[in-house]
Amino acid sequence: MAFGAAMLATSLQAAQAPKNVILFIGDGMGPAYTTAFRYYQADSQVDRVSDTVFDRLMTGSASTFPHDDTVVTDSAAAATALATGTKSYNGAVGVDAEKQPLDSMLVRAKSLGWHTGVIATSQVTHATPASFVAHAHSRRDYQVIAEQFYSRRLKPDQPLVDLILGGGQSYFPMETDQLGDRMVRWGYQYQDKLEGLDKLTRLPVLGLFAPKGFPYAIDSDQPKRLSLMVEAGLRLLGGSDTPFFLMVEGSQIDWCGHGNDIACAMREMEDFAEALELAERFARDRGDTLVVFTADHSTGGLTLGAAGEYRWEAGPVKQVTASLPVLTQALLNQPAEAMTTILEQHVAFNFTPEEVQRLASVSAEESRLYTELMEMISARSFSGWTTTGHDAIDVPLGAIGPGAEKFVGHLDNTEISNTLQQMIR
Amino acid sequence: MAFGAAMLATSLQAAQAPKNVILFIGDGMGPAYTTAFRYYQADSQVDRVSDTVFDRLMTGSASTFPHDDTVVTDSAAAATALATGTKSYNGAVGVDAEKQPLDSMLVRAKSLGWHTGVIATSQVTHATPASFVAHAHSRRDYQVIAEQFYSRRLKPDQPLVDLILGGGQSYFPMETDQLGDRMVRWGYQYQDKLEGLDKLTRLPVLGLFAPKGFPYAIDSDQPKRLSLMVEAGLRLLGGSDTPFFLMVEGSQIDWCGHGNDIACAMREMEDFAEALELAERFARDRGDTLVVFTADHSTGGLTLGAAGEYRWEAGPVKQVTASLPVLTQALLNQPAEAMTTILEQHVAFNFTPEEVQRLASVSAEESRLYTELMEMISARSFSGWTTTGHDAIDVPLGAIGPGAEKFVGHLDNTEISNTLQQMIR
Repeated sequence: MAFGAAMLATSLQAAQAPKNVILFIGDGMGPAYTTAFRYYQADSQVDRVSDTVFDRLMTGSASTFPHDDTVVTDSAAAATALATGTKSYNGAVGVDAEKQPLDSMLVRAKSLGWHTGVIATSQVTHATPASFVAHAHSRRDYQVIAEQFYSRRLKPDQPLVDLILGGGQSYFPMETDQLGDRMVRWGYQYQDKLEGLDKLTRLPVLGLFAPKGFPYAIDSDQPKRLSLMVEAGLRLLGGSDTPFFLMVEGSQIDWCGHGNDIACAMREMEDFAEALELAERFARDRGDTLVVFTADHSTGGLTLGAAGEYRWEAGPVKQVTASLPVLTQALLNQPAEAMTTILEQHVAFNFTPEEVQRLASVSAEESRLYTELMEMISARSFSGWTTTGHDAIDVPLGAIGPGAEKFVGHLDNTEISNTLQQMIR
Repeated sequence: MAFGAAMLATSLQAAQAPKNVILFIGDGMGPAYTTAFRYYQADSQVDRVSDTVFDRLMTGSASTFPHDDTVVTDSAAAATALATGTKSYNGAVGVDAEKQPLDSMLVRAKSLGWHTGVIATSQVTHATPASFVAHAHSRRDYQVIAEQFYSRRLKPDQPLVDLILGGGQSYFPMETDQLGDRMVRWGYQYQDKLEGLDKLTRLPVLGLFAPKGFPYAIDSDQPKRLSLMVEAGLRLLGGSDTPFFLMVEGSQIDWCGHGNDIACAMREMEDFAEALELAERFARDRGDTLVVFTADHSTGGLTLGAAGEYRWEAGPVKQVTASLPVLTQALLNQPAEAMTTILEQHVAFNFTPEEVQRLASVSAEESRLYTELMEMISARSFSGWTTTGHDAIDVPLGAIGPGAEKFVGHLDNTEISNTLQQMIR
């Protein structure tokens, strides 16, 4: 369905600034991912195809090239562009090409007295959330970044980030006088288990639920962890007269993409889509909240169609119930006889005897074993990949709520940022 | 730049139906093609990146899946969906899944007394233009299709298609009482050379400029042949008080994509973009014409980024000045010494001695020679491909003119058709 002229007209008549702004970033979520997710949901059956949340909110596309002449961005440069409106070099976190600090829209919101939040399934110090909070010459400076979540206050008695939910316990140690401990003593409510989200009752909150990133959704008994965090975030931020800015990242779509792991990627998409639907509903119910979604770049050169065949099969993708790293570890150094049993535990389609033999022949070589598994699952589903890195294809862009019409068309990632910053006022 | 709230507001206030409707279809032009074209134009240099015509008109994306449960469409099913609003099987031309005839928007326009036209760089009997004009159980029934361009009149004294420009002389023979001859005697002005476009002075016109499809733009001394035809088409159709419907296809983007030929594809994109710019200007100048562009599907699983490298290089793509089929023919059965000279004639970058040796080692095997060349040029530019067929990724959608706002968001290809048909009234 089209975005809706009626809705646009309403927005245009109102021409009001949103009270709250939520930016969803699907890390690595190029257009092949949003497309695949539609057919994944429909089991590749025409009569079951229906609009996804991405389809419903779609308004256009975004370019992602970095300041370097490489055309292909990394997550740090892309997040810096989205957070600050300025293109920078690959690896930059909140600094420009001359390594000078840049203020993000989160900092802008805080300077206006808004509440602020970041939610991610990576460690919260990872490139995307970090670029909204910190300055670092290198995305690898995790400890430098973590410290700024606490110390970079605009006013001594106000936190820069009121809501921090994600992975990254390792970077916020709770031993006496360590960073996590200092934050709790300063006033952050803290939880380290998703079950404890309900116990977070007032801002500021720090919820860190894994040492670094979460386990992959496909490997987890809590696959909807992003949705759970977003639900808590909307409850905590949305219950106040104070406006809020919230950044939500589906961090691990990208990681599955780097691994060319289609089953892993689709489960991350499920969690990200459900989280975005919570925000969509929040925006529809409230009418005062702008929700924008986009991706920082696409990963893996994913396409739906391979080897000359005019097909893409969702069935085999659903039948795989473990990530490629977990499958590889389970099969490593196993004889062919054991492999069949192990595969049956994790994959509902049958591998041919020839496939099992091929896996057994490389069972001692982790990287070759991974690649063989990857190629077999990709071939079953007719998923194609061209790289283990990123690609430069334009990414989806969508919006709902007051100001959504400003995101219609093709925008550069810096234009998305600058337009959002005009809404934070 | 965003599509523009101001322009949307104007369109919404006006809420008028367009006088004329032009539909541009980039065959095979998935989002990787429109993205690549932006960076191709800018020589991969950040400070030279500017909006393309696709960026300026962008309003959303379109899904392309056929009636089969394959997810991946062919050009016939996709063109039938765009022309008629009904999904069909791969291979269908203007018929539904039960092989029953469907009326296209061109037929609808003609039934309302509009002028109609099709322009393509393929033979005009090829799947995409054919689906707007003819019914055929198979896209291969070229002669059945050609006959309908003439015989399928809604009224005996009015042509179904007033303007037919493209390739396909073979299917409209000019010998006495053959199809082409009958059309000329019936009243079609005919030209068989692009230089003769100026001599076409009144409708109906038949201009066929190649036996089947045109040569590739990259191999042609008339690389802007689509632009030339569109210029003539707008002159002939636009000079009348009678409304018109025009379908324009950039047919060979797809063919280059099947060949995984990035240099070939970018030259086709140049011609298609220039043709679309002519229509954009026409729409801006006139204010009464709706122009919509989309693709029928994406081809080749093209992505920008390969082998783990964060780069896409336009330079090598520009330095290749012949299509892979032409290069392959030139090198076939040549010794290594001659190959270097031949390569220098067509490619401005230097092949390494190792590359030349590799080519020489397969010089007698046409298909392997082609593949080696393809892989070398793809590797230089970091272009990735996953198939020699089509892929299922959502394709770009854009519009300008009265009614353009109805194309904002994600639309299925059948919704694009149905929305356009509502505009033809």
